[in-house]
Amino acid sequence: MEAVCVKAPSDRLDAAGRREERHIMAGEIAEQPEVLARLLERGGPAIRATGRAVAARRPRFVLFAARGSSAHAALYAKYLFEIELGLPCGLASMSTVTAYGASPRYADVLMVTVSQSGGSPDMVAFTRAAREAGATTVAVTNNPDSPLAEAAEHHVDVLAGPGKALPATKTYTADLLALHLLARGMRDQDGAEARALPELAARVLARGDEVARLAERYRFAGRMVVTSRGYGLPTAREAALKLMETSGMPVLAPSGADLLYGPLAVVDAVSPVIAIVTEGPGGDALQPVLDRLRGRGADLMVVGPASQAAAAPAGFALPSSGLPESLQPVLEILPLQQLAHAVAARRD
Amino acid sequence: MEAVCVKAPSDRLDAAGRREERHIMAGEIAEQPEVLARLLERGGPAIRATGRAVAARRPRFVLFAARGSSAHAALYAKYLFEIELGLPCGLASMSTVTAYGASPRYADVLMVTVSQSGGSPDMVAFTRAAREAGATTVAVTNNPDSPLAEAAEHHVDVLAGPGKALPATKTYTADLLALHLLARGMRDQDGAEARALPELAARVLARGDEVARLAERYRFAGRMVVTSRGYGLPTAREAALKLMETSGMPVLAPSGADLLYGPLAVVDAVSPVIAIVTEGPGGDALQPVLDRLRGRGADLMVVGPASQAAAAPAGFALPSSGLPESLQPVLEILPLQQLAHAVAARRD
Repeated sequence: MEAVCVKAPSDRLDAAGRREERHIMAGEIAEQPEVLARLLERGGPAIRATGRAVAARRPRFVLFAARGSSAHAALYAKYLFEIELGLPCGLASMSTVTAYGASPRYADVLMVTVSQSGGSPDMVAFTRAAREAGATTVAVTNNPDSPLAEAAEHHVDVLAGPGKALPATKTYTADLLALHLLARGMRDQDGAEARALPELAARVLARGDEVARLAERYRFAGRMVVTSRGYGLPTAREAALKLMETSGMPVLAPSGADLLYGPLAVVDAVSPVIAIVTEGPGGDALQPVLDRLRGRGADLMVVGPASQAAAAPAGFALPSSGLPESLQPVLEILPLQQLAHAVAARRD
Repeated sequence: MEAVCVKAPSDRLDAAGRREERHIMAGEIAEQPEVLARLLERGGPAIRATGRAVAARRPRFVLFAARGSSAHAALYAKYLFEIELGLPCGLASMSTVTAYGASPRYADVLMVTVSQSGGSPDMVAFTRAAREAGATTVAVTNNPDSPLAEAAEHHVDVLAGPGKALPATKTYTADLLALHLLARGMRDQDGAEARALPELAARVLARGDEVARLAERYRFAGRMVVTSRGYGLPTAREAALKLMETSGMPVLAPSGADLLYGPLAVVDAVSPVIAIVTEGPGGDALQPVLDRLRGRGADLMVVGPASQAAAAPAGFALPSSGLPESLQPVLEILPLQQLAHAVAARRD
């Protein structure tokens, strides 16, 4: 039987404990511009070299293995590697190997394991097995001394500094940027496109008052739906997890396409919807879904370009102009991390 | 921009309409033993031949493309093909191709598209693009005359008969069995192991009174969590979708491993949990998660082997003895389909 090792909400905190937890979370949210700048500057060259080494192995298929917030970063990379590198991608179900003892033939497979701590025994066992079965293995972690970094052939250090809060925030955006740099590196390119991110992130995070006003409307919500398509989908999943972790509220995060296949029944006037609208094909593909939601009278908040945010009953406009759609997720999640924090504080 | 075509809950039905919809759903639930028997008998040889033809192409990676209930059948197949055939598997994000125009290199990739109607334009476009890009394509549908069956190189007909209810039931179990037969066929084996399924399904479905009693406890639930690991996870996802489609209640379905990474905060004494416990490694790997749930005082119902069902505050014992874990999902979902129907009737 495999072990799942995780910094889980095992003990219920008292009110003071919850305040302290939120205080730590707020600190880590605020660190993100600095974390992104450090990763670009100090991490960039090493990740580019790793990308080159990985590309030299000529992988033909990519699998990402991760859990929790890291799995949302992995979902982002799945879109990125498929769209930008033309490689068929999937997310690994680690239990096929660790619980069922399957021995998939991993020759020509690039296996990217993403884990904040790099300490989960089942992820280490899975990565070791994948490496032995012929995969090119890369571990993306926030701890170069972790067993996972040791188990994989290559290690990408996201350099986010010590993470203490249970809800991951700065390691999530650092994972996104690190995976972007890895994909660039596989084409022997640098992170030039991402250079504006730290400054843009600081501008977004400075708008906490706006987020506080938006948080008011969710104070008494019994459930929520967060949706998107394409590059915005990982943001929706991650925002849902942040809201659940902090408020204990059930939050669904189906893709816009899947939403129409059933979960739409959950949406009504007392079930608010947050839509992540990227500027690009993903945002375009979401428009018919937004129309359907409006038709059902859904309470809609849009995080996206100014025009889209202004057209919805509530919105948060992102300064995404000029930023490729593949980098917008790094900004999109920031107001939603703040929102989760602010909603939880109001409900406590 | 791509089109998503779907039999969606676009119009809100009145009370009589909802009763009629449930009546149709109940009829299709009851048809399942007959559907499974027909598929084994009349569909088996053709699927075996398709499996042989697909195996002759020596695929090295498998991707499954599907939405809604079909995506849960695809998730089942992902476990099955990886565990039983040793092929690295993933679920395709169709929008990378249909919205972003990506051109993944699909040589040596087996692309299995699962769709009840076979009519969704974006799935047809995706399958066509995958075929042109070198994938071996198989469409699994309930309509041999559909555009999807036409677009793919191979077609697997699940022979479930006309499906009229919005919540898919008989096509879901038919998809599971068809995918099992396809995996068997790829090793030039028949469906002998599945022979007992129609009779076992009839026995399970005859216990509607038991399900009706279990439904009482969820009459006033504001949210639910359904969880499992391994082969049981698709059942958890599908059960959650059935409950949402019929009752409009938010239902989360994280894997047992992911549950510990955050959504656990949603579980408390007023948030009932249904656990699908398969008899095998998946069920074993779920035990530590069940212990954690008990420790939080969760209201737990177990669908699984008699011993596990009896040990929980509520349970539904499956006659799964002797059935390989890989076929148990065909039985597991049956009481949960009935439960979704019964809970919705009580809440209406």
